[in-house]
Amino acid sequence: MSDVRVIIQRDSEREERVVTTGTTAAELFAGERTIVAARVAGDLKDLAYEVQDGETVEAVEISSEDGLNILRHSTAHVMAQAVQEIFPEAKLGIGPPVKDGFYYDFDVEKPFTPEDLKAIEKKMQEIQKRGQRFSRRVVTDEAAREELASEPYKLELIGLKGSASSDDGADVEVGAGELTIYDNVDARTGDLCWKDLCRGPHLPTTRNIPAFKLMRNAAAYWRGSEKNPMLQRIYGTAWPSKDELKAHLDFLAEAEKRDHRKLGNELDLFSIPDQIGSGLAVFHPKGGVVRRVMEDYSRRRHEEEGYEFVYTPHATKGKLFETSGHLDWYADGMYPPMQLDEGVDYYLKPMNCPMHNLIFDARGRSYRELPLRLFEFGTVYRYEKSGVVHGLTRARGFTQDDAHIYCTREQMAEELDKTLTFVLNLLRDYGLTDFYLELSTKDPEKFVGSEEAWETATETLRQVAEKQGLPLVPDPGGAAFYGPKISVQAKDAIGRTWQMSTVQLDFNLPERFDLEYTGPDGSKQRPVMIHRALFGSIERFFAVLLEHYAGAFPAWLAPVQAVGIPIGDAHVEYLHRFAAEAKKQGLRVEVDSSSDRMQKKIRNAQKQKVPFMVIAGDEDMTHGAVSFRYRDGSQENGIPVEEAIEKIAKVVEERVQV
Amino acid sequence: MSDVRVIIQRDSEREERVVTTGTTAAELFAGERTIVAARVAGDLKDLAYEVQDGETVEAVEISSEDGLNILRHSTAHVMAQAVQEIFPEAKLGIGPPVKDGFYYDFDVEKPFTPEDLKAIEKKMQEIQKRGQRFSRRVVTDEAAREELASEPYKLELIGLKGSASSDDGADVEVGAGELTIYDNVDARTGDLCWKDLCRGPHLPTTRNIPAFKLMRNAAAYWRGSEKNPMLQRIYGTAWPSKDELKAHLDFLAEAEKRDHRKLGNELDLFSIPDQIGSGLAVFHPKGGVVRRVMEDYSRRRHEEEGYEFVYTPHATKGKLFETSGHLDWYADGMYPPMQLDEGVDYYLKPMNCPMHNLIFDARGRSYRELPLRLFEFGTVYRYEKSGVVHGLTRARGFTQDDAHIYCTREQMAEELDKTLTFVLNLLRDYGLTDFYLELSTKDPEKFVGSEEAWETATETLRQVAEKQGLPLVPDPGGAAFYGPKISVQAKDAIGRTWQMSTVQLDFNLPERFDLEYTGPDGSKQRPVMIHRALFGSIERFFAVLLEHYAGAFPAWLAPVQAVGIPIGDAHVEYLHRFAAEAKKQGLRVEVDSSSDRMQKKIRNAQKQKVPFMVIAGDEDMTHGAVSFRYRDGSQENGIPVEEAIEKIAKVVEERVQV
Repeated sequence: MSDVRVIIQRDSEREERVVTTGTTAAELFAGERTIVAARVAGDLKDLAYEVQDGETVEAVEISSEDGLNILRHSTAHVMAQAVQEIFPEAKLGIGPPVKDGFYYDFDVEKPFTPEDLKAIEKKMQEIQKRGQRFSRRVVTDEAAREELASEPYKLELIGLKGSASSDDGADVEVGAGELTIYDNVDARTGDLCWKDLCRGPHLPTTRNIPAFKLMRNAAAYWRGSEKNPMLQRIYGTAWPSKDELKAHLDFLAEAEKRDHRKLGNELDLFSIPDQIGSGLAVFHPKGGVVRRVMEDYSRRRHEEEGYEFVYTPHATKGKLFETSGHLDWYADGMYPPMQLDEGVDYYLKPMNCPMHNLIFDARGRSYRELPLRLFEFGTVYRYEKSGVVHGLTRARGFTQDDAHIYCTREQMAEELDKTLTFVLNLLRDYGLTDFYLELSTKDPEKFVGSEEAWETATETLRQVAEKQGLPLVPDPGGAAFYGPKISVQAKDAIGRTWQMSTVQLDFNLPERFDLEYTGPDGSKQRPVMIHRALFGSIERFFAVLLEHYAGAFPAWLAPVQAVGIPIGDAHVEYLHRFAAEAKKQGLRVEVDSSSDRMQKKIRNAQKQKVPFMVIAGDEDMTHGAVSFRYRDGSQENGIPVEEAIEKIAKVVEERVQV
Repeated sequence: MSDVRVIIQRDSEREERVVTTGTTAAELFAGERTIVAARVAGDLKDLAYEVQDGETVEAVEISSEDGLNILRHSTAHVMAQAVQEIFPEAKLGIGPPVKDGFYYDFDVEKPFTPEDLKAIEKKMQEIQKRGQRFSRRVVTDEAAREELASEPYKLELIGLKGSASSDDGADVEVGAGELTIYDNVDARTGDLCWKDLCRGPHLPTTRNIPAFKLMRNAAAYWRGSEKNPMLQRIYGTAWPSKDELKAHLDFLAEAEKRDHRKLGNELDLFSIPDQIGSGLAVFHPKGGVVRRVMEDYSRRRHEEEGYEFVYTPHATKGKLFETSGHLDWYADGMYPPMQLDEGVDYYLKPMNCPMHNLIFDARGRSYRELPLRLFEFGTVYRYEKSGVVHGLTRARGFTQDDAHIYCTREQMAEELDKTLTFVLNLLRDYGLTDFYLELSTKDPEKFVGSEEAWETATETLRQVAEKQGLPLVPDPGGAAFYGPKISVQAKDAIGRTWQMSTVQLDFNLPERFDLEYTGPDGSKQRPVMIHRALFGSIERFFAVLLEHYAGAFPAWLAPVQAVGIPIGDAHVEYLHRFAAEAKKQGLRVEVDSSSDRMQKKIRNAQKQKVPFMVIAGDEDMTHGAVSFRYRDGSQENGIPVEEAIEKIAKVVEERVQV
């Protein structure tokens, strides 16, 4: 028995150790229960892995990204075992870890019922308590085919070995290297309880699963294609502790309450009618008000910043997108063409930039006109697969608050600086305050323009970004091929990060469109182009704000800013006069003159999340006053009418929450 | 020789006369040079027609619609004769009268040059002076084929006899009855100079052509189809007097100066880039300002009138237009479908109404919510043949200021009255003041709903229209199948009539969409729907205003309201301060700080039709004043700065012209 020298690494701490041949990673990390796997030469290994001389063995903590994936992947196995113990005829699909959890697909006759899910969860708890080992074993293709003869989908995966894409999670099963099966083995009896074709790695035993829960089931096509059989998918979640599981479930409950699709319906803001199609929303009058206020304020601020407003159509000859290159590198994201005039293909525009370029190019330009900032609320149409469309946040048609800035190379730095400051301040005005920046730099495989130009541009962007004093996260290789970009990531009220604004440099389109301006010396020069969208998409930003505020918009954005609630019929007319006065100040005020009782009216206004309930009774009328009731239930009495209107107007003017 | 009794009719005056057999209409109207043809039993006849016993012979004055058509048709013959005298190899197409003139198509090797046109015109004058007779002669098909063996297009028309549609003017040649040839005969020698297959009638002689002019030439496909050979078309005009010809040419020159496509380019307002496609315009920053001001003002007025604002997408599943019926009766006006998601057809919307109906129907509606007025600046796409597309006035994509009002039957009359008053006042605000109304009523062949409902609705519309005290022109049969409509016809500064707003009742869509509201008694009721657009299309209204004002917009609409013009470099800074002050009042002010000399700057501002030129020199600076120069060249000196800004602001506020 010879000595084996290994280096053990935990975070940045390295320890050299000499152990005997056959020592496993589990033995190296004995007693450290939060370590669930090892990383050796870049590959993840089970703790049962026997370390070899000269290897560096990295600890994988359960709370790390890899650790969580392993935890969730192992829990998926436990779920699949539970399903087959209860439904022996169920055939296995695939079962990868996903964000915050895992799923497994099954070919079963009927969709799972909520009761089925409860039973499966209970069975999983049993298996968890049994403390089964996850045991790895290398097999030949032939042996695997024989062992898994009753699992038709697994057989298909064996055939795919190495070529499966990670899109459908199939590589979790087969990977590119040797074929392996994981056995679930009873720790006491050594009996084989269940097995799965799987590349691993896994937790040592099912006891290492600290906390899990099944979430929901859904139908899913085998390997994502509508041409394949429909399977039944069960989603679950798993966490390193019961507290973390609870926090996650609380977060989900909170997120569900704030779901913009749900709020959009409850508050009568928008809908996505089936007759129009998924990803194509209509804004109802109340949503229309919010959107218009958002647009108006943005427009006013853009005017102050020297932007000029243009309008361009939604459809164009394909020729334009040949010039821009979109038909070469973006065709998948576009709607299919419409053929007009016997043979000319027209397309819906997925982006506004090519059209803005035509406006720049509509006449000769002088350096005196630069920076030229063309702005448009431009509605674009992009083809998204029906499976990924989600409410207003991932839609097939949306309106960009889109601008293109044409400037000289010398103006570039100052213009980027101004733009980024403007962007961040505007987002703050809408109530988002917690940001970090991301700097996407060149993909060495895919870029146009000279190395030098990229370097200058990237450096300029970096300096501009650093000046904001916000965290700056690098995103190497994340730039589009035509130039580097800064994106603004904003956190909402429950801590979720949303990519908001992007500021993108472009050396490519000015070339493709042969854009020129005349310099002070009369020579023709090529302008630099900056693409920037603040909201990204108005619909998406609307949805983000709706979720951020959980529907309780600050008064300046609220569709109805105040609702008059009479204590009795005698006070209706009085509140109508109040409303008329307030409307003169541009306020959006309604009076609830329905036959409902006062308490019902208050509940309705609260449900509608109206910032100011303006209540009036005899005493108020006698004193020419009203009472305010707020969304939180607090109340303020006897405010003279004029003061009350001023107060609402001030809250609106200052764009604050009440 | 027996007596022939005829009745001669001139306007409303009837005269009975007894003449001898063989008397011609020319003899009846001898000496009345303005009478160029006769109408007998509804048919137009040459004056050479021999009147028959018992006939009523109506005089056709050259200035009447029929008379003008005959004049122009005869002039077209003269032109064709002239062309064949100069270009004997030219083959004849067709040559009908059209609005204000005529054309004739020729198959020639090369397009006509301006010199050719001059030579043809000269030859026409010769022919005119020769005083050739137009002489009618009935022929059999065989004889016609033989005589016209060298005119392939005429041979084709003989085959079409009776089936040619009036769209391409071919029925002027062959008609439905007997086949006729018109000979041009030398009055002195009796020689045949030229002939044409033609149903006539014609003037007696070429001397009856008082005034004509050739206008331009263009290419045109034989019978309007791109599959046929390309011919060369010459357009001309002809009038009952030299004065009328001159007035017409002056009008055309004025219209050309005002052509919105020309002004759009000169004032840098918009363009229709070839890369995007005909009928699809982009608005440049200056046009964008005008459009935005138009939209903003309209929106403010709509808010005041209780409209609510919605947003809907530009594309939708075809299903929606099946429900609405558009795919049945409007498919030709729609862009072709785009197929998404393996087999679902999506269409660009040609109208907004179906989407507004979905918003109405998104939740239950109560009678308390009615009238519900949904407004949208909705961009629609309609397929127009490339030949008829014209600038912004007939486009393939345009934005309607579109609203749909849902109300009860009882509210209908008041709502229509309010709507029409609102429409007319809004148009007046934009500077149009000369209107008449048109009432389009039921087409007895094509309508849905009961006779009674139509009668009530038509009567309601008539009363509402009459209340306005404007001329009301009936348009029997002009209604769409779903309900009667009022349209507002406005005259512009040079007397042209434009159809502007339409107010349309609709009993059909509420049925098709099964729209309902709950009445006071809890029962389900069907609302009435009113479609109304004020501008019709913003782009078209923009073009109408541009032509109406010949580009010299009143200050409230002008892209630049005032331009500062320094007398010397020393006054630039002073004017910048002036501009900054004015901008605080929301005015659009620029300073011309270019290196041009003052006179050039004034010329530039005049060319750009800026309402206020604000000039400053030493004396102005000393007194804290500026001078105004107006577009008409008049000037006003020494206006204190504050007063000057107030003055501009007042002109803007009052929406008047300076």
